[in-house]
This record gives sequence, structure tokens and C-alpha cells, in this order.
Amino acid sequence: MNTFGRLLKISIFGESHGECIGIVVDGCPAGLRLSMHDLISDLERRKGGAKGTTTRIETDIPLIKSGIFNGKTTGAPIMIIFENKNINSEEYEKIKDIPRPGHADLTAKQKFGKFNDYRGAGHFSGRLTAALIAAGAIAKKLLIKNITELPQVRGNPGVNTKESASFSEEGRLLPKAILSEATNSSPRKFTIKAKVVEVNGSKNIESAINAAIKENDSIGGIVECRILGLPPGLGEPFFDSVESLISHIVFSIPAVKGIEFGSGFRCASMHGSKCNDEIINVNGKTKTNNAGGINGGITNGNEVTFRVAVKPAPSISKIQNTINLKTGKSVKISIKGRHDVCISLRVPPLLEAISALVFADLMLIEQKIPKIVR
Amino acid sequence: MNTFGRLLKISIFGESHGECIGIVVDGCPAGLRLSMHDLISDLERRKGGAKGTTTRIETDIPLIKSGIFNGKTTGAPIMIIFENKNINSEEYEKIKDIPRPGHADLTAKQKFGKFNDYRGAGHFSGRLTAALIAAGAIAKKLLIKNITELPQVRGNPGVNTKESASFSEEGRLLPKAILSEATNSSPRKFTIKAKVVEVNGSKNIESAINAAIKENDSIGGIVECRILGLPPGLGEPFFDSVESLISHIVFSIPAVKGIEFGSGFRCASMHGSKCNDEIINVNGKTKTNNAGGINGGITNGNEVTFRVAVKPAPSISKIQNTINLKTGKSVKISIKGRHDVCISLRVPPLLEAISALVFADLMLIEQKIPKIVR
Amino acid sequence: MNTFGRLLKISIFGESHGECIGIVVDGCPAGLRLSMHDLISDLERRKGGAKGTTTRIETDIPLIKSGIFNGKTTGAPIMIIFENKNINSEEYEKIKDIPRPGHADLTAKQKFGKFNDYRGAGHFSGRLTAALIAAGAIAKKLLIKNITELPQVRGNPGVNTKESASFSEEGRLLPKAILSEATNSSPRKFTIKAKVVEVNGSKNIESAINAAIKENDSIGGIVECRILGLPPGLGEPFFDSVESLISHIVFSIPAVKGIEFGSGFRCASMHGSKCNDEIINVNGKTKTNNAGGINGGITNGNEVTFRVAVKPAPSISKIQNTINLKTGKSVKISIKGRHDVCISLRVPPLLEAISALVFADLMLIEQKIPKIVR
Amino acid sequence: MNTFGRLLKISIFGESHGECIGIVVDGCPAGLRLSMHDLISDLERRKGGAKGTTTRIETDIPLIKSGIFNGKTTGAPIMIIFENKNINSEEYEKIKDIPRPGHADLTAKQKFGKFNDYRGAGHFSGRLTAALIAAGAIAKKLLIKNITELPQVRGNPGVNTKESASFSEEGRLLPKAILSEATNSSPRKFTIKAKVVEVNGSKNIESAINAAIKENDSIGGIVECRILGLPPGLGEPFFDSVESLISHIVFSIPAVKGIEFGSGFRCASMHGSKCNDEIINVNGKTKTNNAGGINGGITNGNEVTFRVAVKPAPSISKIQNTINLKTGKSVKISIKGRHDVCISLRVPPLLEAISALVFADLMLIEQKIPKIVR
Repeated sequence: MNTFGRLLKISIFGESHGECIGIVVDGCPAGLRLSMHDLISDLERRKGGAKGTTTRIETDIPLIKSGIFNGKTTGAPIMIIFENKNINSEEYEKIKDIPRPGHADLTAKQKFGKFNDYRGAGHFSGRLTAALIAAGAIAKKLLIKNITELPQVRGNPGVNTKESASFSEEGRLLPKAILSEATNSSPRKFTIKAKVVEVNGSKNIESAINAAIKENDSIGGIVECRILGLPPGLGEPFFDSVESLISHIVFSIPAVKGIEFGSGFRCASMHGSKCNDEIINVNGKTKTNNAGGINGGITNGNEVTFRVAVKPAPSISKIQNTINLKTGKSVKISIKGRHDVCISLRVPPLLEAISALVFADLMLIEQKIPKIVR
Repeated sequence: MNTFGRLLKISIFGESHGECIGIVVDGCPAGLRLSMHDLISDLERRKGGAKGTTTRIETDIPLIKSGIFNGKTTGAPIMIIFENKNINSEEYEKIKDIPRPGHADLTAKQKFGKFNDYRGAGHFSGRLTAALIAAGAIAKKLLIKNITELPQVRGNPGVNTKESASFSEEGRLLPKAILSEATNSSPRKFTIKAKVVEVNGSKNIESAINAAIKENDSIGGIVECRILGLPPGLGEPFFDSVESLISHIVFSIPAVKGIEFGSGFRCASMHGSKCNDEIINVNGKTKTNNAGGINGGITNGNEVTFRVAVKPAPSISKIQNTINLKTGKSVKISIKGRHDVCISLRVPPLLEAISALVFADLMLIEQKIPKIVR
Repeated sequence: MNTFGRLLKISIFGESHGECIGIVVDGCPAGLRLSMHDLISDLERRKGGAKGTTTRIETDIPLIKSGIFNGKTTGAPIMIIFENKNINSEEYEKIKDIPRPGHADLTAKQKFGKFNDYRGAGHFSGRLTAALIAAGAIAKKLLIKNITELPQVRGNPGVNTKESASFSEEGRLLPKAILSEATNSSPRKFTIKAKVVEVNGSKNIESAINAAIKENDSIGGIVECRILGLPPGLGEPFFDSVESLISHIVFSIPAVKGIEFGSGFRCASMHGSKCNDEIINVNGKTKTNNAGGINGGITNGNEVTFRVAVKPAPSISKIQNTINLKTGKSVKISIKGRHDVCISLRVPPLLEAISALVFADLMLIEQKIPKIVR
Repeated sequence: MNTFGRLLKISIFGESHGECIGIVVDGCPAGLRLSMHDLISDLERRKGGAKGTTTRIETDIPLIKSGIFNGKTTGAPIMIIFENKNINSEEYEKIKDIPRPGHADLTAKQKFGKFNDYRGAGHFSGRLTAALIAAGAIAKKLLIKNITELPQVRGNPGVNTKESASFSEEGRLLPKAILSEATNSSPRKFTIKAKVVEVNGSKNIESAINAAIKENDSIGGIVECRILGLPPGLGEPFFDSVESLISHIVFSIPAVKGIEFGSGFRCASMHGSKCNDEIINVNGKTKTNNAGGINGGITNGNEVTFRVAVKPAPSISKIQNTINLKTGKSVKISIKGRHDVCISLRVPPLLEAISALVFADLMLIEQKIPKIVR
């Protein structure tokens, strides 16, 4: 369905060429200062306009319609809407029986029949990711507020050996040694940062894009996300591992075709003695990070890292073969318009958004974000 | 949590060195012929014993404790238990404060404190995957019964243009041309098949394993799964895409660190003109299959393919550095026992099981498996 | 949380004095003809204006913002919004530290702290039930379309005794006798109808209301809902019984304090020989209907009936005692405004709406409403 | 389905005359001391044997098969099984085509076809409630441990007026006056207690039972549950109100046909001035408790009270009319055996169990029970 999350739940709606797209964010704690300005900077990063991205730019203004009072969240669902403007659906009328290769045109029809809204990919449009960015920005604020801005005592729970051990803020036993270390320690700093690391197989992103523009074709890429400052112990032992939750929502981003955590596919060519990360202190810090900060599905306190494979945008002006569903005959198609040469360039803020959503939810479940924001 | 699925729901429990492991399968339609013999062949494939796998073999007898009557499912939850035998937990007592690199020992402690059952990895043990295999075998039977054994009329819904169109079995409109084709067609054939395609970076699996045995180390690998015969239209447009659901449950298999659908990470180096799969008939058959049978998160009727990266088993007898959590000092550890040199060899039946669970659930949601088995 | 349903899922949002209230309806099959006109007649019934209800009337115009294309549902989420107008929040500023007895003023503060939107009861307002009515109207259309408008063959599955038995439309075995009966039968007719059966303990509703108006007080009542035409077999054996699902959502209607199915509380004074409903034909028709059409949590094909207790509206102009939370001192409060003397009068369309939502969901799960509307 | 709960999730399985019944309890915090002895006293209360209940007594021994290590919960799922013994299914063979009035015999067949396990009501049997009792006993321990045994600072959040306000244990602002009161206060005391308040319309329970025994018939009753000590703020504003959650699971107890909270159906005959509960201090204590401790779906800190209507057990030896499904003819049936004259007598521990499950879940969600038990 179109809903995701356990205590922080999102519900997405809308179509590319309908009246609007939007999202409901349910379960956000009360008391978080929030306005549309908190959402705009990540929305700007998602927009096209840079070399290699579409030149068609929508003014993505997130209208917060509920859940805010006096500039702060109330605890009730937050509904955010983006109105659609400057829509031109004529192009799509012409090709409604001619599914574009690589798009969801045909599968949407296979699923919903002739009733599917085919204009601009309808509900399947990449435009819906603006709503994800907005929801993710709220989750980011929750994480920053509750990790970076709070002095925290975090020990290694369950490792105590002495009767005289103290309690951590979370009510867990702390061994004395760890306690004193923790008390002195400065707060954790939370950062979440994604970037394109490769396009069309090359680390020289600019030249690869220039080449693709000349070739009148689109190219794929690899985007990496790194999250620092998360406490250990997030995630569930079996079906709701951190990898399960992140990959679940990552694949709702159009064009993502693969994901790997830590060294990922490179692990498949490693020996165990190399792949295992040596543990170097009682907090679980490791020398290497092939695990990507996750063991047994649960954060280990090291940096969480993952990379996704983004396929080239399917819309290209080069001539392609497809089928006319009415006549059953093969036809040629050239997709006109202002396309993304390299859609990967727009993915980084999305990886940050979906990661923030997953971790804010897990932090709520593990009671590391309070139900009323401090 | 430890639950997965929407209409076909599984709930897993148990520990490696506890009394048992097991699973509850809820939502299986009534009337499916089922006995433990249906579960055994896939369980056999998961077991060790072959070169490159552990020489410690448990007799994995699945005891079906509920949900069956007169040899058929009743519609009520099916509970399956595997009793644990020949458990030797002494080894684990010695190392309970010394987390093994690459294992979940430390994260389990970070999450559950000193109360975690550390014996044989407890609830995090790979042994729980036997329960997944058993549940998957039920899902496989549902799929085979409802795809291969049934003559089916399947058209391309929503493509009709004439008033005189007929209805498909699912009550969807069928254009005349497609109808006659469909009526004549033989039934779909459902197959699901996973295999190891590479270990330690080599396609020569046997020699790679022999080398690893000599080196006293473990090695990773890549396992591929292919599913043929699925109808188009399975999966949801946004958060519950087929890729989302499969990857969600794939990452509950210990040692999996990456997944890609179709050409996956190779798409990141492709041009759009190459990556887009040309559609060659009205049923959506494509010339190539870079999409892995999935567009916009929804099956397109072509073969579904995905590959997972399996890291080397973390248990190795080679000496490794880690930390003693009690003393905070660095220690050396050598993990004794009969380990899997190449754990990838045991993954194929698991990929089949989790795929079958996802697709049986989606088939129920799309009403392509009836609530009472025919 | 603010989400309900399994395959037909609703997600509600909004505040009484915010910009809007609304709902997302996810999982509605594609192809259902739908416009705001389908929603309006039930919305009109919910509105005040009649004797005994508030004289403050909002123009409840449901704006369908997504999920519709060419006048039909697309299968994507349907978002419906009601804009708030003519809001006067001043009154609420005055009493924000003085919780009104019988209202959620204090519990909202206890849950969400000082961040709660207290204006007009905020997210707790009865105004949100307009969104429920709109969602319910969609569910009603699904039920009418798939029960009343379709000729159906419905047998008593599993009752066959002969090898030569035929299959029902649902692929279930039908004994010959039942088959012939079913084939000849006219279609089921679906009706859903709720009404006030008692106010302030009296069946003479008008005189009870007149008395209450004179006394300047509010009064409670009992509302009954009857649903005819549902197929047997809906509901789940354990936690998701029909009674469980209906009562779950009924208690989200403000002022409901009790529910009973069939003869309900009267059963507590009955003997078994009287309470048991005699079965009089193979379709399960019963002579009496103390069970309210539900046995073991599952519909039995008879009329489903339930009654709810509605407390008097808490807003009254009579002087009441409460506490000033700032000063801790007792204060007197008289709630001014145009109140509902008998809020029960507005409940009938709500009972119909929530029943339709539950049964449309169950019909989808039992595959009696197709995923693409015929 | 057969699953209930959000963070504390239960999954039930088993049949009356199969090998066993049982339950998986997922999400119980680690560190709770637990053995089968904690479950037995409530299980004893559910058992028959007293006057008015069945004379057939099973030895209900709850075998805890997973999730416990060294006598404490580990955080992994807890699976509890009850083996079935002394089963005599012959009686049921005779009547398998003759549905008993008032039982789920026919609806089970209508739902699952001929595959339903009809022996002793199969999965629909009241015997499964033993599993609910066991799960509820765990939830009770969690509540007692985290309410009664902990000294707590509880203020009225959000009510502060001064900059110098302090934080409560939950990180919420506390006004000075309340803070000092709270600090001095003794811990809350948690109690949960259900009892039969009426049978067959009479408060004289013993004489009503004696009369029913003479009449060879069964009788219904009303059971009340009271829960004291819960913090305010539990429950959700809309679909997951406390009333919604409790009534959802209450109706999975066989024979329950109605529920009312606080004054419930009596509210329908009250005036608002009488029904509204006067608030008498800043903690929300009320003079009366017509609301049953719940306003707007959320606990208000007062005692939570509810009552359920229990119909007479449908199994009676008196002759009843029903239908033979094979022949379609009317037949007479007398149900032999050792029946419950007054099944209500066995309901009290069940109301306590399901209430404890709901409130332990809500306490986890509101972060008032920590993820590792203190």
C-alpha cells in the first residue's frame, strides 16, 4: 500500500498531473518547531536545473495543512500538500496506448486497467518524491534535536559487572568505567549526508554527464548515504532489521535497482578474516566498517553506510521500439521534452529523507526520542 | 518486530540453543494438502554437509502443530516447530563477554542488555532460517497449485477498445484479440529457482571453495533467484513495491549485505537506450530483462530476477582481535568448531522461500489465489 | 494512531480550527465512478440544523484531490479535504487553561502537553467525522456495486457431498441442490441503515428533545444500525472478528460509550435455549437474530445489527465546576454557543459509514469485491 | 487475522482437539523475571470446576518454549504452548453436518469450507483463551513492575507557567507546585480486577446459578473490569482510542456480545449536566466517573472501568432445532456433555488479561515501560 512506518507513519497520495501530491505524517511528537522553511532546503536540492538534470522547474512549495499550532507540532497528523501547476498533459494523450520502455506505463495498466491515470506517470511519478523529502525533513529535525542538541549519557548496556553500577538516562545499568567516560563526553553529533559517487561507471561525474548530453542519452549512477551519530541497538533481530527497513523504503524511489550496506557486493569477494570488522573498544567501535554499521540487523554505533544503484532515466529522445497496445503492432517512439540526463543527481536528498524516516521511527520505538519534544 | 506479511503473515520465534525454533503461518487458505513431507526437501537443501558447509548436521524435522486437519490446511494459523537437540553451549559461556567480530554478539547486547541469550547467537542464529524454509514451502505449494495447475485466461486488462469485449476470469475486460489468444493458451508454468553464481569473485565455485578450505578462512558469494510464471500487476505503486517487499525479508537472512534486481548495479553504468527493455507484445514481454521483471515496483509478466551478496561466514578459526567487554582490554579469539567455509551454498533455498512468501501474499491480495484452495 | 483498515485503509488528519480536515482512502479498487456528489447526501445527513442539533452549519464540501481520473477511481490513494471557514477561536483562548468537563481538553493536554491545538477541540473535534462520512460513502458504493448490482451465485461452500458438484463463481464447490437454487435466485440486495431508536431513555424522540431544550441541557441516546445482504464468511476467527473491527472504529466517533451486537446486553439475562438462534435452512438463515448476524466473529448471512450508546454532548450552557490548571483553583464554567441538544441525531450516517468501511475491507480480503470494479 | 498489538504483539494458534494451542508474545522488553509459575494463578482462575462451570478440567500447563534465558525475558519472542490431552472427538464426528445453534459451526464452514476443523470448535474454541491468559499475565507483570514498584514523578505536563519549571522524569516541563507535590508523593499503585456483577439479570449470583442448573439451561451475565493506577495520556486521538483497542480484543473472547465504558448505556438516558464528570484537581481527578477514566479516547488518570455482556453458553442439553446441511432437513439436537451453566464465571481473568495486553502496549508506545526492564 501507500503507507510506511510503525510509530512514525507516512501515507502518500497524489498524481503528477492531478491537483496535487502530498503526504500525511502521523506520530510526530508534539512540540517540534516546524514551518515550511524547514522543508525547503532539502526540496531545493531535489529540484532539477543543474547541468544533467531537467530544465523544467516546479516551484515546490510545501503547504502544511494540519498538525501545527503556534509554530510547533501538536502531536496530531501533519498533512503536507504540493499543488501542481503548469501541467501539460497533451503529450501523454498521444502515447496513452504506447507504453514507454523502462517506465511503469504498462505495469500500471496491468494492475489498474484502463482506469490508471497515465498523465505524467500519474501516481507513479517521481514528483511524489517531493512529499518524501518533506516528511524526511521533519524526521531529520527530530533526530538532530534528540541526538546533537542533547547532552547524553550513553553506556554499553548490560556490560556491567559490579553491584554498584549506576543507571543511564535510559534506566540501563552502566559500569563505573563507562559511566565516568560517558559523563565527561560531549554530546553525540548527528549527521546524515548522501552524495553521488559515480555516474556511468566513472568517478569523474562532470565529464560523464557532458558525454551523455552529447550522445542524447541518459546515464545511471551510484549514490552513497552515510549517517553518523546513531545510538547502537536500533533495529529488530528478525524481519525488521535496519537493512530491511531502509531497503523497503529505498525501493519506493523510482529508478533504484540495487542497494548494498557497508562493503555490500564487495563482501562477496572477501575472506572472512578481512570482512569481519575488528572491535576496538567497549562501545563497539570497529577498525574497519565493512558491516556498514549494522550487525545482525541492528546498529552497532558506528557510521551507517549504504549505496544504491540508480538506473538511467527511461525518458530519452533517442528512438526506441515498443508496442501499440490497441493495434498490437510494433511502433517507434521518441520521448520529447526536458529530461534528466542523469537522474542520480537528484537522489541524494531522497536517501537522506528515507533514512531519517526509518531512524526517527526506530528511535521512537527504542524510546530515544521522547513523545513530547524537549 | 518478528512478523512479516499482509494477508499471509509469518511470526517467527526461537533460539539456537533454546528448546526449539519455529514459525506461525497465518492466512494460508483452507484446503491445501500439506504434510511435513512437503517441507522436507527444501529443508534438506538448506542443511550443511556438502563440501564448503558445516559438518554439523541437525535433523531438521518440522513438526506441524496446528492448522492441519485430515491432511489439509483448515484456514487457521499453521504452527511449525523444530526441536533443538545435541546442544553444547559450553563454548559460548567462555566467550560471552568477548563479542565475535562480524557477529551480532555485541549488537544483541547493545539492544537487549545482559539479558540477551548469547548461546549460539540465540534468536539471531542462522538456525531460524529453517523456519523460513518451512513457511516458504507452504507458499510455494500455494503458487504452484494456483499458477501451474490451473488453466488460466489472462489478458491485458484495460486495453480493450470495443464495446463487445468479454470478461476475463478475474472479471476484467478483455479485448477480443487477446481473449482468443488467451483461451487457446496453455496454462502458465510457475518455477522458482535460486543458485550460487559466484563465490569469492569466481565462477569456478569448487576451486574457490577448495582454496578457502586450505586457507582456513571463509568466503563470500553471490546467489541469484529467478521466478517464472508470475502474473503481471503484483506489487504496490509506492511503499510496497515488489522490490521493497523482497528486499525487506531478504535482509532477515543473516549474512546478506546487498541485493539487486535485474541488471541492478550494472544499470548504474548503462545508457538509458540500453537499459530500457523493449516491449515486444501486448502482454508486455520484453526483449531484454534489465528490469528484472519489475517496472514501477510492479511485476510486468516477465521473469523476476534478483541477486544477493552474501558475506563470508564470520566464524573462522583464524585468530582475530576483539575486546573483552568486562575488562575493556583487547583480546585475541579463534573460533573453534565445524564452520561453513562458504555460507552462500546454503542460501539458495532461502531465496526461494522468501520470494514464495512475498508472491503468495501478493497473489492473495490481488485475488489470484482464492481463499479456499481449488 | 490515525490509520485504520487492512486492504482498504484510511488515514485521517486535520483540526477543527486549522485550515482543513481530511482523509486519505488507500486501496479502493480502480474503476469506481466517483465524484463529490456521491459523498454529499450522507454529509448532509450528518450536518446540524434540525431541531435538537446545533444551529451552526458549515458548508461541508468534500474536495477530492487525488485518485480520480475521468470520473473514476484509479486505484491510487484518494485524498479528500474539507476546508475550514468561519472560524472563531477567541472563545477558546479564554478557556484554554480551564478544561471543560466531559471533553478531551484535559486528556489532550495530558498526552501532548502544552502543544495541543485546543481551539474547537483541535484534532479531537467531532468535525473530523465529516471525513469518515466521505470515506464511508466510497465504501458504500463499493458494496452496493458488488452486492446489489451483480447477479451472484452463492452456495454454502464445503457442504457438497457429490463428486459431480459444480464450482461457484468464487471457485468453491457447490452441491447440486444448492447450485440450482442459487442460479435461479435473484441478486442479493445490500442495504445499510442506521437510526436513532431512543433518546434520554424514551422512544418518543421529539418530546424528549423538546424537554431537553427547555431544561437547557443535553441528552444522550441509542442509535441502531442494520446491514442486510452481506455474504456469510466475513471476519476472522480470532482478533479480527466482525465485532472487533466494528467496535474498534465505532469508538473513534466522539460520545460513543457502548456497543452491543444483536441482543447484546439483553443476552446477559437470557437462557441459552432462548438466546441460541435456530437455524432454519442450509444457507444459515435463523428464526431469531439474537446473534446480530455474527457467530464466532464471522457473518452468518443474516442481517447484521448493532446498537451504540451515545452520551449527551458535553457542551452545555448550564454552570459546571471545573479546575483552572494555572491556579489550581476550582472555577465555574458555562459553555456558550449553539450546541447540540441531542448529538445522537447526527450519529446514524456515521454508523453506516464505519460499517461500510469495515465490510468493504472484509469483502476485499475475502475476494468478493474485485481489485478492478466491474 | 490472528495477530494483535503494536509494540507488544501477540499471535495466537491452535485447535481444541489438535495437538496444542498457544501464543507468540513479541516485543516484551528484556529483563523481566518470568516462569510458568507467573502464569498459573490466572490460568487457574479461568478453569472450570466451580459450581456453574464445566466439570471437565484440563491441566493447563503453559510451556514457555522461547524468549526466556536464566529466568528472564531476553527481548526475543516468547512462545507459550499448551498441549491438548484427553481429547474425545467422536461426539463431533456425529454432528459435523449438524451445526449447533449459537455456535460458530456454520460460520466456520461458510468461511473455510469443508476443510474447517470442526472437532470441539477447532480454532474457534474457548480453549484458546488459555493462551490469552498466559500472554496477559506477562503484560500484567510489566505493568506492576513499571507502575507499582517504581517511585515516579508524574506531573501534569504542559501546564507550566514559569520559566523556572523543572523537567519530569519523562522530560516534560513541570510547574513548581506540581513538582514538589509529585516528589513527595508515594508511587502509584497498579491494580486490575474483574468480577461477575450480575447473572441472568440478578445480582444474587448463587441463586441464579442454582435455578439454571435445575432448569437444565445456561445463563448469561455481566462482567466488570476496573484498572487503577494507569497514567493519563494513554491511547490515540482517533482510531486507536483506548475504547477501540479494548473492545477490539474483548470481542475475540467467545460469548461477549456487548461492551460499555464507564456508565456506558446508562449515559444514553442521562443529561449532560449529570454525565459530565466534574474535574476537581490539576491532575484531572474527577468527582464522578461516568467516563470510565477515558475522555477523547485517552486515559485521564482516573480508574478505567468497563463492563461486558456475556451471552449464555450455547451448549445446552435441552432439545433444539437446527438443520442437517447434507439433507437440508430440520433436525433436533441435544448437546451432551459437561457444559458451563454460566460461562460468565470464567470471563473475569480474561478481561484482566486483555486489558493488561492493551495497556502494556500503550505504555511501551508512550515510553512509560522501558525497553529493558528496570
